[in-house]
Amino acid sequence: MGTPIKRKHSVEISALGQFTDRYMGCGYNRDYSVKELIDRAKSVKKISGIELCGTWHITEATANQVKTWIDDSGLEFVSVLPDYFAQRKYGHGALSSSDPQIRRDAVRDTKIMMDICADFGGKIVTVWNGQDGYDYPFTANYIERRSWITECIKECAKYRSDIKLSIEYKPREPKMRSFMSDAATTMLMINDIGCDNVGVTLDFGHSLMGIENPAEAAAIIKMYGDRLFHCHINDNLGYWDDDCLTGVFHPVETIEFLYWVKRLGYNGYYSYDQYLYREDGRDGLEEGIEWMETLAAVADALDDAEVDRLMTSGDGIAFARMIREKMFRPLPRA
Amino acid sequence: MGTPIKRKHSVEISALGQFTDRYMGCGYNRDYSVKELIDRAKSVKKISGIELCGTWHITEATANQVKTWIDDSGLEFVSVLPDYFAQRKYGHGALSSSDPQIRRDAVRDTKIMMDICADFGGKIVTVWNGQDGYDYPFTANYIERRSWITECIKECAKYRSDIKLSIEYKPREPKMRSFMSDAATTMLMINDIGCDNVGVTLDFGHSLMGIENPAEAAAIIKMYGDRLFHCHINDNLGYWDDDCLTGVFHPVETIEFLYWVKRLGYNGYYSYDQYLYREDGRDGLEEGIEWMETLAAVADALDDAEVDRLMTSGDGIAFARMIREKMFRPLPRA
Amino acid sequence: MGTPIKRKHSVEISALGQFTDRYMGCGYNRDYSVKELIDRAKSVKKISGIELCGTWHITEATANQVKTWIDDSGLEFVSVLPDYFAQRKYGHGALSSSDPQIRRDAVRDTKIMMDICADFGGKIVTVWNGQDGYDYPFTANYIERRSWITECIKECAKYRSDIKLSIEYKPREPKMRSFMSDAATTMLMINDIGCDNVGVTLDFGHSLMGIENPAEAAAIIKMYGDRLFHCHINDNLGYWDDDCLTGVFHPVETIEFLYWVKRLGYNGYYSYDQYLYREDGRDGLEEGIEWMETLAAVADALDDAEVDRLMTSGDGIAFARMIREKMFRPLPRA
Amino acid sequence: MGTPIKRKHSVEISALGQFTDRYMGCGYNRDYSVKELIDRAKSVKKISGIELCGTWHITEATANQVKTWIDDSGLEFVSVLPDYFAQRKYGHGALSSSDPQIRRDAVRDTKIMMDICADFGGKIVTVWNGQDGYDYPFTANYIERRSWITECIKECAKYRSDIKLSIEYKPREPKMRSFMSDAATTMLMINDIGCDNVGVTLDFGHSLMGIENPAEAAAIIKMYGDRLFHCHINDNLGYWDDDCLTGVFHPVETIEFLYWVKRLGYNGYYSYDQYLYREDGRDGLEEGIEWMETLAAVADALDDAEVDRLMTSGDGIAFARMIREKMFRPLPRA
Repeated sequence: MGTPIKRKHSVEISALGQFTDRYMGCGYNRDYSVKELIDRAKSVKKISGIELCGTWHITEATANQVKTWIDDSGLEFVSVLPDYFAQRKYGHGALSSSDPQIRRDAVRDTKIMMDICADFGGKIVTVWNGQDGYDYPFTANYIERRSWITECIKECAKYRSDIKLSIEYKPREPKMRSFMSDAATTMLMINDIGCDNVGVTLDFGHSLMGIENPAEAAAIIKMYGDRLFHCHINDNLGYWDDDCLTGVFHPVETIEFLYWVKRLGYNGYYSYDQYLYREDGRDGLEEGIEWMETLAAVADALDDAEVDRLMTSGDGIAFARMIREKMFRPLPRA
Repeated sequence: MGTPIKRKHSVEISALGQFTDRYMGCGYNRDYSVKELIDRAKSVKKISGIELCGTWHITEATANQVKTWIDDSGLEFVSVLPDYFAQRKYGHGALSSSDPQIRRDAVRDTKIMMDICADFGGKIVTVWNGQDGYDYPFTANYIERRSWITECIKECAKYRSDIKLSIEYKPREPKMRSFMSDAATTMLMINDIGCDNVGVTLDFGHSLMGIENPAEAAAIIKMYGDRLFHCHINDNLGYWDDDCLTGVFHPVETIEFLYWVKRLGYNGYYSYDQYLYREDGRDGLEEGIEWMETLAAVADALDDAEVDRLMTSGDGIAFARMIREKMFRPLPRA
Repeated sequence: MGTPIKRKHSVEISALGQFTDRYMGCGYNRDYSVKELIDRAKSVKKISGIELCGTWHITEATANQVKTWIDDSGLEFVSVLPDYFAQRKYGHGALSSSDPQIRRDAVRDTKIMMDICADFGGKIVTVWNGQDGYDYPFTANYIERRSWITECIKECAKYRSDIKLSIEYKPREPKMRSFMSDAATTMLMINDIGCDNVGVTLDFGHSLMGIENPAEAAAIIKMYGDRLFHCHINDNLGYWDDDCLTGVFHPVETIEFLYWVKRLGYNGYYSYDQYLYREDGRDGLEEGIEWMETLAAVADALDDAEVDRLMTSGDGIAFARMIREKMFRPLPRA
Repeated sequence: MGTPIKRKHSVEISALGQFTDRYMGCGYNRDYSVKELIDRAKSVKKISGIELCGTWHITEATANQVKTWIDDSGLEFVSVLPDYFAQRKYGHGALSSSDPQIRRDAVRDTKIMMDICADFGGKIVTVWNGQDGYDYPFTANYIERRSWITECIKECAKYRSDIKLSIEYKPREPKMRSFMSDAATTMLMINDIGCDNVGVTLDFGHSLMGIENPAEAAAIIKMYGDRLFHCHINDNLGYWDDDCLTGVFHPVETIEFLYWVKRLGYNGYYSYDQYLYREDGRDGLEEGIEWMETLAAVADALDDAEVDRLMTSGDGIAFARMIREKMFRPLPRA
């Protein structure tokens, strides 16, 4: 039997607010202020970390006020995302924009968030290049655009080495195709950047929608540079970034992921990136963490030697038996 | 050689405005008033029909004003959609809501739009049940919910038989799964409703994202009740409702679709449901229609007897040769 | 708490043999004779039913011998499939072939299997139209081809009403697109055929690969004709008919499916259509049944009243809590 | 206007034979001898190169005879594939097998094919690790398995530097997941191997089924090591390796691909990896090449300066206009 380990849970506070989509522009619920969102985070059992998104939750102007609220909450400040995706000027790309001024703006926004992150006691700036992609053939020079992203991130990484830049890859949305689309394209870029403080945020759902197996993606990130800095957690049906309740559609893949990142030495936060459009985000976060801890208990109950034998034999039936015996509650049968 | 036929093009005016997504809540462009949207429709070459969406463009209160604008535009009024998807009360379903009052509201909204449609000289109300679906297992009684939709649509259909109700199916989004997910589920319901004025809006992109072949979907709608009332046109990568520029990713499927619906006797409008988030909707509409007319010219150039021989032989190579010879511009080769 | 019910398990004996694919033509394992396959079926714990595939396991010439083996095995004879997919003459379609002689052959083969089924004490002939589909646009007249299938199945259904014809739909493979692609297209055809002894075999994996939710597919089959005759069980990654070990990738969807078919009154067999290319089919079948019974125990433990409340409220968080509490073994947590 | 360039076409001769699948084990057509396949290759207009697959077409024992036939054909010998996928011993992996003896066998088979390739005047051995993947979670140590592949390929690469080893990635099939799944994972491994004679075979269809845009995949291979050694050409519906007729489902993506690889300086062969199960492989190859040359003529007609402006502006509408004007034959319109 394996040994349970303590895992840390955090949340980017958007997950606690209301959600809009392209049809329900008014949102499915009601608006929450940043103060309310922080309070809601604090109210969630087992959450110990908090994350923010630039523009939506924090700017240079509001930083002092927000810091007070977070300090008061007792939550550890884990990460902040520069906003490259919700400002109209970034609609045609931020770090990969053809307009050098927009790239400079995006770099400046990143550095500001790095400073805020440091001020808040955080260590990680999450770089999610949502608009750095393309929709149609012939509308992007793939090499030039990637070079621009590389340069921009390198400049930011050198700006202060005490803050990690953690790139969150995603195969598509909002653009039809993203440049940092999966673990391997991201590691190629990271190796090209060559700075130790640039790594990867593995979003479980992004990995699934890109037809990766998330556990294998984590292994690739380990193998080619050891850069798994952060994990986002949620689930989906496999086709789109549904950002739904953790674990319910892919419990076994989630168990394998938890087993692997533990074994690879990951000891960062699990950050819940759920977008529960039609549920209450706060209550859904508590339930998501319960699923996660339940699945983690299965992962922790696995015996390393048995797993090693399985991985050597490649025996699918033995895998199914092992997981079944560890995973399911014994119930009466007819 | 086949004979070119004249096809009619229309647009639901949202396609001419700006677009938001869940990240870019402010929209990628600028807002347009309803009057501006109608003017933009009028300015598009080859557009002769116009469509509206309830709440966004028209309510009982504004109907008279909007009618004046449309009359002045000289465009034929083709269709209006009741809004079941952008009002918070419909977030958990409209025609399939567990709350009978909400179902009554949705029926009432539909009847109002039927009356407006008739007043405006239109014939078709498009029923897009965006929120009538579900996200998670065990959260919907599939039979009961379908029964409610059936009852509601039947009531509306009987309310006035001079207006057609045209159900626009879609496999998912905004819900993770929709009840009217494809041509066949929709025809099963329509046959159950049993009213001649209930039919189908085939959205080319919805069909693709549901792994249908749109031409075959049109044939199924013909075969099991002859209810193809309306067509929405756009394209996508095959995985999601990208609502992108017409024809660019699936030109051959679009040609086959145009060929089939012509042969099946469809003589309604082709309505462009493009959501060109990062382009200009008006210019994109003109280009979309150019693609459509170009692809339609290929469809029209096909010889029925040759197609019949192909469909009897099932010869894939002969298909490829036929399309290649009709489709491509002869260009110099090395 | 719900009450456990007894479920019956059967196997089409191909699942116990070796498997080939387009690369490994020699198969991954070793060949087994029909006698060996029947012996292997008998050796599997909890299997009480057996199924055969025409040509591969049984012809008119071998029927008497095979019947003896099956009688000796003590297994109930559940179903036989006419072979429309492994004979070269059916490569361009069987029941939908443009060649009337081939359609007649397919009808004759079906009637022979109906007679054999009756002789063997079975009730169901499984109609899997593997080659009745198409690869390319313009290579099939969708209406004519469907009409031919309809006529052929009708003729067979009328041949003897004591045998059920159960159509196993599948979205694609071996053809790029199949005519009977999902539950709804199949029910449209069945309603058109109009014979009570024609129904549906719902293959869980085919349903998933067609982006259906299998539980909802079962409800559709109930609602529009009450024709769920048979169920095939396996799992896949969601993109292709991997025919892999039952339940491991979609446990929650499998639980929902088992709950729904029980509630809809299905009391037929669960037939394991696993193709464990690189495992032992017999051992994998035992493990698959263990997964099935485990998941069925979860389904049986659900309280109908609680499920009804969930389905009324549509509460996704309550769903997740209910399943979590019933499904998982309590394990130590850190 | 761009300038047409001369492109070279080759074929791995399996594409000229008959095809089996897991159901039609006897094949859809008739068997062809190796001599017949070579004759068929020779008979195809515009084919100037030929490729073989180990075991199926060539072994040490038959090499002399086969060489005579190829020399007589006048076709250039382009590549040979070691067979890691059709021998039972490789069913659980070849270069990634847990059994060191099997890895040694696979290395030995590769070296033999390298020698044969050199003897035949070829330059490229195509490494398609079909069985180097996994089916289930917990059945492969992703890092260890990748390390073994890395070691094996490195050993082969060092064996003789005059022969290129070109890795053909593929996301899945026959295994449910492959280790070399896309361009980026393959480039990470190639950079790790560190030998100049190891590169990539980009199979257009594998790229599509992995949700890559093939043009972008080529750019990634250029950018991170300049290792595009070989191209396989075919098409599919986007979900599976249908290996169907070139260009018919993705003409615009094929044009973009041809444009990009030309611009990136690729001057190797285009090798047709079509599996036309139900068509004649030889005739289908001729038609595939016609599609390819037609689409290449469109690519060649594009003006680099105009493309550059498009790629800077990111203007999707201008892209659609440019392609439409170059691609389609002007036809009469109503």
